[in-house]
Amino acid sequence: MPATADELVALLDLETIDLNLFRGQQPNTTMQRVFGGQVAAQALVAATRTVPDDMAVHSLHSYFMRPGDTSVPIVYDVERVRDGRSFTTRRALARQHGRPIYAMTASYQRVEEGFDHQDPMPEVPSPAESTDIAAALSKPGSEHRQEWLREWAALELRHAGNPTPGARSRYWVKTAQELPDQRLVHEAVLTYLSDMTLIGVALVPYGRTPSSPDVQVASLDHTIWFHRPFRADEWLLYDQSSPSASGARGLALGRLFTEDGRLVATVAQEGLIRPR
Amino acid sequence: MPATADELVALLDLETIDLNLFRGQQPNTTMQRVFGGQVAAQALVAATRTVPDDMAVHSLHSYFMRPGDTSVPIVYDVERVRDGRSFTTRRALARQHGRPIYAMTASYQRVEEGFDHQDPMPEVPSPAESTDIAAALSKPGSEHRQEWLREWAALELRHAGNPTPGARSRYWVKTAQELPDQRLVHEAVLTYLSDMTLIGVALVPYGRTPSSPDVQVASLDHTIWFHRPFRADEWLLYDQSSPSASGARGLALGRLFTEDGRLVATVAQEGLIRPR
Repeated sequence: MPATADELVALLDLETIDLNLFRGQQPNTTMQRVFGGQVAAQALVAATRTVPDDMAVHSLHSYFMRPGDTSVPIVYDVERVRDGRSFTTRRALARQHGRPIYAMTASYQRVEEGFDHQDPMPEVPSPAESTDIAAALSKPGSEHRQEWLREWAALELRHAGNPTPGARSRYWVKTAQELPDQRLVHEAVLTYLSDMTLIGVALVPYGRTPSSPDVQVASLDHTIWFHRPFRADEWLLYDQSSPSASGARGLALGRLFTEDGRLVATVAQEGLIRPR
Repeated sequence: MPATADELVALLDLETIDLNLFRGQQPNTTMQRVFGGQVAAQALVAATRTVPDDMAVHSLHSYFMRPGDTSVPIVYDVERVRDGRSFTTRRALARQHGRPIYAMTASYQRVEEGFDHQDPMPEVPSPAESTDIAAALSKPGSEHRQEWLREWAALELRHAGNPTPGARSRYWVKTAQELPDQRLVHEAVLTYLSDMTLIGVALVPYGRTPSSPDVQVASLDHTIWFHRPFRADEWLLYDQSSPSASGARGLALGRLFTEDGRLVATVAQEGLIRPR
């Protein structure tokens, strides 16, 4: 996976094959399957390339249908479902070997003003007071943890206090280096990082993680509502909870806040969490 | 709109035009535009007709793109995006006058068991202790309220206690009469009723409703995660809240619980809430 913010930006910068048709490259990785956040972020970039500059994405809804193959690029077909005055809709289908692996619909809005409210940010230690996850993970020095740190080196993560009881998890996250000023880069990076750990919160009540050997975990869908402007190279609190698990599936909800408490995005993901 | 549970079931029973192609009728209504819950429920029925009987819908994600015309039927095109062993995916596109008005993706799972947890149901008065919304609305006797009651006569609604501060709203809901025992009927009816009031909760902090003259309201997307079995002809608590509004959009989250406290579905909807 990209080791720096620059490498991450390059991964999310697609090649244009034809009108509405794009190709995304693969990073160096030891991961067996394509990381869902990468597909989602690349699909968002593909869809957004077909939308006028004065419109911004306000939501995306998507399904993961097949595991991606890390050895070949991913092709993104964008369908211009609707072009409206206020809202514009795109569908993007990601495929490999001629088969769809991921389907996204995204909606864009011409910027306007209106009512404003938000849930308050939970009380957590500031990033400066929080423990770096890399430091915490490198201490025990297991090979698995070292590998995890190498894969996610483009991001900095800090535990935001001790986990509360129940299915909840909180950390601070941002890119390790500065990002360029284009809005789409920040939206795509948020999309990328939003899939990293989310479904794991559904396993917290069972003392397991997505890498536990006795559970099979896979993202099924992924949804983001973008509420307010933000930068992905500044600290974001990712507050995650799981309201329900049943039928070998878990639902996870996430909220991303800036350090000064603005709610910038809500994320939802259902995942397969199947006992082996 | 349908005045009885039987009429509602008939509205959601589509005509098959060809393989993967269906047509949905319109109800008698004084509404200016097609009710979003009707399109969503009909699209779910269309998609589910193409899926093996031993699979059940576990989620749907959708976008409203254009207002529907109540004077002509709606045509539903279903695309069999993926048929898998455990999971199957369908896309459905609703159209009128040759233009797409609504796009849904739905995912189906072969029933399996696994981990189980859920958020507890909030403490509210039971349906027996709650005020019937029809009784409450018919007292003042305004024409608007009488009309509202006629449109939604297929459903019974009861206020579940007094609204708490902030953007929250709770009521009990079920069909006015018994429904047949087919699972899809109950899933489609839940989908229908889940769009009835949801976005209104984003207006609660501003003392407005979707029928306030100084605000333009329209559903933008609609998502349901189905967690556990239920009947739509038995009371369901619909607990609604709005975590955020900004940019003339509001996000609303809903949770549906059975009377004995089982969480059966989570609903999410973003809507346009534009001050006029």
